[in-house]
Amino acid sequence: MFPQVSRRLFSSSSLLRNRAVVYTKNGPPSQIISAISYPSLPPPPPNTVNIRFILSPVNPADLNTIEGVYPSKPTASTNINSSGKGSQEEPVFVAGNEGLAEVVEVGEGVSGLEKGAWVVMDKPQLGTWATSRNVAAKQVIRLPFGKLSGLSEAQGATMTVNPTTAYNMLDSFVPLAPGDWIIQNGANSAVGKLVIQIAKIRGIKTINLVRPRDDLAGLVKELEKLGADKVLTYDELNDKSIRGKVKEWTDGKAIRFLTYKQDIRLGLNCVGGDPATAMARLLGQNAHLVSYGAMSKRPLSLPTSLFIFKNLVSHGFWQTRWTKENPRHKKEALIGTLAEWMSKGKLKVSDHEIVTIPKDDSDEVASQKIRDVLARISEGKVGKKVLLRLEGTESV
Amino acid sequence: MFPQVSRRLFSSSSLLRNRAVVYTKNGPPSQIISAISYPSLPPPPPNTVNIRFILSPVNPADLNTIEGVYPSKPTASTNINSSGKGSQEEPVFVAGNEGLAEVVEVGEGVSGLEKGAWVVMDKPQLGTWATSRNVAAKQVIRLPFGKLSGLSEAQGATMTVNPTTAYNMLDSFVPLAPGDWIIQNGANSAVGKLVIQIAKIRGIKTINLVRPRDDLAGLVKELEKLGADKVLTYDELNDKSIRGKVKEWTDGKAIRFLTYKQDIRLGLNCVGGDPATAMARLLGQNAHLVSYGAMSKRPLSLPTSLFIFKNLVSHGFWQTRWTKENPRHKKEALIGTLAEWMSKGKLKVSDHEIVTIPKDDSDEVASQKIRDVLARISEGKVGKKVLLRLEGTESV
Repeated sequence: MFPQVSRRLFSSSSLLRNRAVVYTKNGPPSQIISAISYPSLPPPPPNTVNIRFILSPVNPADLNTIEGVYPSKPTASTNINSSGKGSQEEPVFVAGNEGLAEVVEVGEGVSGLEKGAWVVMDKPQLGTWATSRNVAAKQVIRLPFGKLSGLSEAQGATMTVNPTTAYNMLDSFVPLAPGDWIIQNGANSAVGKLVIQIAKIRGIKTINLVRPRDDLAGLVKELEKLGADKVLTYDELNDKSIRGKVKEWTDGKAIRFLTYKQDIRLGLNCVGGDPATAMARLLGQNAHLVSYGAMSKRPLSLPTSLFIFKNLVSHGFWQTRWTKENPRHKKEALIGTLAEWMSKGKLKVSDHEIVTIPKDDSDEVASQKIRDVLARISEGKVGKKVLLRLEGTESV
Repeated sequence: MFPQVSRRLFSSSSLLRNRAVVYTKNGPPSQIISAISYPSLPPPPPNTVNIRFILSPVNPADLNTIEGVYPSKPTASTNINSSGKGSQEEPVFVAGNEGLAEVVEVGEGVSGLEKGAWVVMDKPQLGTWATSRNVAAKQVIRLPFGKLSGLSEAQGATMTVNPTTAYNMLDSFVPLAPGDWIIQNGANSAVGKLVIQIAKIRGIKTINLVRPRDDLAGLVKELEKLGADKVLTYDELNDKSIRGKVKEWTDGKAIRFLTYKQDIRLGLNCVGGDPATAMARLLGQNAHLVSYGAMSKRPLSLPTSLFIFKNLVSHGFWQTRWTKENPRHKKEALIGTLAEWMSKGKLKVSDHEIVTIPKDDSDEVASQKIRDVLARISEGKVGKKVLLRLEGTESV
């Protein structure tokens, strides 16, 4: 079934050296993707670079994109191993949005990128589940000092979705000073843990809400180790005493001889439903509620009085939009900041599992391995983030 | 029961000439308010003016304020017939937030206000259900040209709550150009009708949502006469064909030779619940949903995806906050604009009913009359807005 695609697309080449994970129409990822092979890239056209992917994460949004239910759509490639000109082959979508790559060859007219430089993707849905791609120089952002920075491959590969989301949500809606409090639900999600750490770096205090569970003490300890100031369950949030507690925590901000009441002005929501409603009630005047997920699959339901009389503003945050709307210098600065924090150990990335597809695997075997991984992820059987390493002859 | 209050407060005076509607503690308006009499005001202290109320509306929020459930609280007056200094009397709250008054005497140091000038209130909860008050000059805003402007008393009296709300919601969230579309529910509310008219004046197109009803054709005709472009019921809103219809209405904005798709970027909500959710789904990218009421008494429930992927922002609007936060020149400009539109007949105010309390009524009779009116309003038996006229010897 899947070899058909690769045969049709790449029958002109007898030497199969690189690999990409592709699909031609939307559907269940574990049924419709194929691993296809293609020869080494031709030299890059002007203003482009050839890059080799080191690690490419499988994010939940990647699966939604393959299913066709994600609002950000990839562009089909007619010929993934060149700049796409002049090919008559059936167009395919190369999966993957995030990844760490190394520049392997630089086209004419490109400045600021040399062979060996580490880059992350600036263009969403570029198609990162591949051994190598030819991309416009402006579609990537260079990591300062590359591998010399002390950054791990996994850190570099997982920088442009979750850490940027956490950073920007703390940065874009409310001007926060050290000592200010924020509140978030889904605090043990990948983004939630990054929020805790970035807040800690900035001196911002966090109230972290999680689902009740058997091993709560362990989770609390884990989040506190990352820098969480307070951890509460959604059940505790519904307790009437919670307002008093929160008031006690946030009221006593003392600066020199002054102590003043301090409202919580930022709430981060990835859950929706009741835990979001209860969290919103703890926000103070002129607060911003920022939603970036809906794990409960329930809508955001908020009393109108919070909007009218407390001047609550409810927003969404989507890193893809942020990337499209912000100037390059700002994105480079953000990546530089995150890379520095990560390399200094201030910012830990999620637990991950590297899935390597050896270059000697046949496309059939490679396809089946990747389908199996995607099936496991879809079924919720993988606790860690999966990072794909698609080996090829261009692998170092 | 109520004469007791007035006796204690005003026993020093034998000549009762003016009247105020007061309460000493929160409770059901029709049970706890009293009409009390007081003598003519002493000459105004420096930087203050004595004003005589011409008409003072009974707004729903006034009843909530008396009940103690409204977030904006009045200040208690220890002596309503002077500047409040040196009195030992029991403090009372004078009811009423909105009203049209005439300046009757001007204190030293006041500029820009002379005897006979018409003024509206700049300070919320000033206590307008009274014959006359002494107020700081900065607590009122002068109506340009006063009675010479051609403005009716009812227009002047109902300018600072509903028309300002309608104007500011169209002005504060989305820059709207002629030909742009907005959508609102509760379109036949007092504010809704003002939104239709102000949008019409500005060349903005409106989609207006109303409850299904028997006399729908009559209501549609009425709203269209005010300037409504489209009127739909909440039932029609739930019909699947609605997206196509709205697209058809809003798409065809042609400027010279270009026709471009035009998203609806502003939704005004005073209903909540399902009619708000369905309305929000019709909004385009980067839209703002502004809530100013919750007639359904149900919360605002919105899919998180609207926030994340369509960049919806949900706000509240409260004219009281706007008044507190905006500079005086802006408020004067707004009142000037509204007064001009009203006097030229471009902006019609709600149907109203004037309830006059003659100066010769005893406090007992006056109190009972006002209690009866408030009871009728609380029970929803008054379709029109009630405007109080509390006659006194200072009445013209």
